[in-house]
Amino acid sequence: MDFLSDFLTLFLAKLQSPTLGFLIGGMVVAAVNSRLQIPDAIYKFIVFMLLIKVGLSGGIAIRNADLAKMLLPAVFAVVVGILIVFIGRYTLAKLPKVKTVDAIATAGLFGAVSGSTLAAALTILETEGIEYEAWAAALYPFMDIPALVTAIVLASIYTSKQRDTADEYLSKQEYSSKQAIIARGYPSKQHERVKIWPIVKESLQGSALSALLLGLALGLLTRPESVYESFFNPLFRGLLSILMLVMGMEATARISELRRVGQWYALYAFVAPLLHGFIAFGFGMIAHYTTGFSLGGVVILAVIAASSSDISGPPTLRAGIPSANPSAYIGASTAVGTPVALALGIPLYIGLAQALMGG
Amino acid sequence: MDFLSDFLTLFLAKLQSPTLGFLIGGMVVAAVNSRLQIPDAIYKFIVFMLLIKVGLSGGIAIRNADLAKMLLPAVFAVVVGILIVFIGRYTLAKLPKVKTVDAIATAGLFGAVSGSTLAAALTILETEGIEYEAWAAALYPFMDIPALVTAIVLASIYTSKQRDTADEYLSKQEYSSKQAIIARGYPSKQHERVKIWPIVKESLQGSALSALLLGLALGLLTRPESVYESFFNPLFRGLLSILMLVMGMEATARISELRRVGQWYALYAFVAPLLHGFIAFGFGMIAHYTTGFSLGGVVILAVIAASSSDISGPPTLRAGIPSANPSAYIGASTAVGTPVALALGIPLYIGLAQALMGG
Amino acid sequence: MDFLSDFLTLFLAKLQSPTLGFLIGGMVVAAVNSRLQIPDAIYKFIVFMLLIKVGLSGGIAIRNADLAKMLLPAVFAVVVGILIVFIGRYTLAKLPKVKTVDAIATAGLFGAVSGSTLAAALTILETEGIEYEAWAAALYPFMDIPALVTAIVLASIYTSKQRDTADEYLSKQEYSSKQAIIARGYPSKQHERVKIWPIVKESLQGSALSALLLGLALGLLTRPESVYESFFNPLFRGLLSILMLVMGMEATARISELRRVGQWYALYAFVAPLLHGFIAFGFGMIAHYTTGFSLGGVVILAVIAASSSDISGPPTLRAGIPSANPSAYIGASTAVGTPVALALGIPLYIGLAQALMGG
Repeated sequence: MDFLSDFLTLFLAKLQSPTLGFLIGGMVVAAVNSRLQIPDAIYKFIVFMLLIKVGLSGGIAIRNADLAKMLLPAVFAVVVGILIVFIGRYTLAKLPKVKTVDAIATAGLFGAVSGSTLAAALTILETEGIEYEAWAAALYPFMDIPALVTAIVLASIYTSKQRDTADEYLSKQEYSSKQAIIARGYPSKQHERVKIWPIVKESLQGSALSALLLGLALGLLTRPESVYESFFNPLFRGLLSILMLVMGMEATARISELRRVGQWYALYAFVAPLLHGFIAFGFGMIAHYTTGFSLGGVVILAVIAASSSDISGPPTLRAGIPSANPSAYIGASTAVGTPVALALGIPLYIGLAQALMGG
Repeated sequence: MDFLSDFLTLFLAKLQSPTLGFLIGGMVVAAVNSRLQIPDAIYKFIVFMLLIKVGLSGGIAIRNADLAKMLLPAVFAVVVGILIVFIGRYTLAKLPKVKTVDAIATAGLFGAVSGSTLAAALTILETEGIEYEAWAAALYPFMDIPALVTAIVLASIYTSKQRDTADEYLSKQEYSSKQAIIARGYPSKQHERVKIWPIVKESLQGSALSALLLGLALGLLTRPESVYESFFNPLFRGLLSILMLVMGMEATARISELRRVGQWYALYAFVAPLLHGFIAFGFGMIAHYTTGFSLGGVVILAVIAASSSDISGPPTLRAGIPSANPSAYIGASTAVGTPVALALGIPLYIGLAQALMGG
Repeated sequence: MDFLSDFLTLFLAKLQSPTLGFLIGGMVVAAVNSRLQIPDAIYKFIVFMLLIKVGLSGGIAIRNADLAKMLLPAVFAVVVGILIVFIGRYTLAKLPKVKTVDAIATAGLFGAVSGSTLAAALTILETEGIEYEAWAAALYPFMDIPALVTAIVLASIYTSKQRDTADEYLSKQEYSSKQAIIARGYPSKQHERVKIWPIVKESLQGSALSALLLGLALGLLTRPESVYESFFNPLFRGLLSILMLVMGMEATARISELRRVGQWYALYAFVAPLLHGFIAFGFGMIAHYTTGFSLGGVVILAVIAASSSDISGPPTLRAGIPSANPSAYIGASTAVGTPVALALGIPLYIGLAQALMGG
């Protein structure tokens, strides 16, 4: 039961991390009816600061990477990032009583990448003496950002269809006496099909993805290192802790929503990291046999897929899918997903790589 | 007149400190009718940032302290912190024309602890070769936070009683013709008694004490050091300077209120630090004879009691007792209280300890 | 064509600087109709933070300078700073279709000082072994702040006169049938004359100049170094990048205003730095012959005059002349003025000084 004790140790340490500490702090503050509040203007600015930092660090990492060599793994990272969200959309979201937007947001968070899980994997790879490409860690934004964008777009499509169905339902009632139902049927269906691109565009114009993509573009095309190192990066963890406090304050009000579905989130959060890691490991092996991508790099790709973001994800999803319940996605990720990826995922993929190397 | 020149030098240096400089700057800005303003959302967030930092540093200090050994001095620190506020409540607040809430806030500030006065005392103790327990400096939150909480609760009780009396007075007038006065007399008295706990609860739920206690709990129960060192602590002095500016802008409008009572504040601010220090010295000696608390530790306890906060106090009191006049409590503390504690208090308690050691 | 390639290299590097990068980023964000926004409270606070920092650094520089020796050069710096704004007021502002407030703001920015241009000049002077007074760099606030104040006051006077003329025009129409025109003529003229001081006072009471002058006073009279070094200075570049983003978002809407006058701004931005530099060089030579001001110091004075601020200027002008188009003044300064001052101005003044030394 070495794994279980490792898992519990990590779980307890996670509970004491500032990120989760402030989240729980916010929940307690709301539970005791405190009048503590973070002004809305501050909250919006904090989200902006966090997202532009996530974008900038991704953009800088991509700009400094060897794009020609990393092309195939990067494409695979994008594919896996999008795939993870679709897997969640058609598994977790279909479970009984699970709310679709909550499930999509959770899948988005599991598609996004945890920098600290990645750092842990890099440390272990170095300890084990397994070689990997210097640019392999720069694969993370190729999975992180597409996963978050996909989740926000899928949620918008879903919400928009719901609204349409509601409109149609209302229309049906209004017009039922006038036999207008059949006449409306076809245009509505077509409307639904042509509507996807406007929704994608609208999602990208939203404040969350705009800030993320603006940061990405600035990181790629300009030299924002001075301002990144002196301002956006040092303030990141502190601002994140305040965002967590706000999200905790909201979570208290919405935690009861999860009472009947908690077991599904726990199940998903346990299985998903391992599954995502194996899918990415498979893609990585294709790159290994075709372009000579190192086995260490394959492990990194798998760990990136197995990890779930407790950093870039929450602010993006909070602003991009405001109707989703933060207790669902943050709870699933930090309480179960991350410990599973760290204590179970990393040793599995490294063991697999070592077995393949020995072979 | 070596003391007087020391005192004046310290007084002038204090006037140039950023804290007081921004306060005076704010007063001048308001006096010349400038349209400069700090948006309310920013002001509220600054107060939150300051209070959570004060709580965090207190919580971290307590967590890292040796609680078993420091139990008795810590209990004494709490007792002295509460006692100081009650002393102010029944001396300064009773002086002619002194407003009760201003006096309670001032007593709260004199009960709270100045980190810089404490640091000065530690330096001198080391120079003089007087030994003290490593955890002795961690006694400060045990006095600081109870004093501020007591002041806010006492002010709430007072304000609430005032409102009641006003209500009663109005009621008397309304009902006088109906002989309802006697009938209302008893319930009102009882009402007053049972009301104290709700007021304590309401004070603790206010944004000021919530932020302070949240920080304390996070500092005690989680490991927020990374975010404390990288975010809350480095931003503290800067944000405090902006708060001082805002308080200065308000002070201009209210300084005339103090014209007729300034001498009482000056008297209190001169006597109180020395008196508080001697009370704490006495309690410290009890711990010295019963549990072997070092004489250096006794000096530290006395200095903590003698010091008045120019850091943790102003934001807490500003948010917790909004009706109190900041010109009263900050003026009394920074202009008189702190120089007295530094130039007169520290040498006195160290001399006393050395005399006791020699004996 | 060595100069041209230098110029283009500098121009391209400038486009990648965080300052201009965020400005262009903001323009793109607005052009694609993103819903990204910086809350107004945050924007106002950022402007405050930037201006108080500019004032503080100026005040600290002046306090640490040798005022007796630098008196004449400092007076000349003030004179040149004011003169530059008046030159722009009576050249650029008089060109066809150029809006007067835009021209005054641009002249204010060219009168203000670029810290990086100044730093480049100091480095080259040291490389060339040209001696200069240690306090010479501290001349910059003497030109920077008067230029910005003059620009804001001139713009207020102009706007106020416009409003008057409009009022008068409306009055004429109203009263034309009553032959009230002649009767109003004289009082209106007199009104215009006595109105200038109230406008200067009103400008100084505005939030922009209040923050700037407050910072200057605190820098001069108190010791804010600790809070300056730990808070205002480190946050400066980051907050400026966010201001640039906001200004870029606004610029998109207003860039079309410049279509017909862009050539005038380009012409002004090319000629003005060199002209301003020569004027300051002339004043510097007077100080050289009368008080022995070093030739290196004369070069520094010329470079200060030639440089146009991309740091202190934009926030001050944005808040002080809100009706001016930021695309005009920032575009002219960063895209043309600064490269001209760096690539053409500095070598010219150093060459001139060396020729005079050799003679």
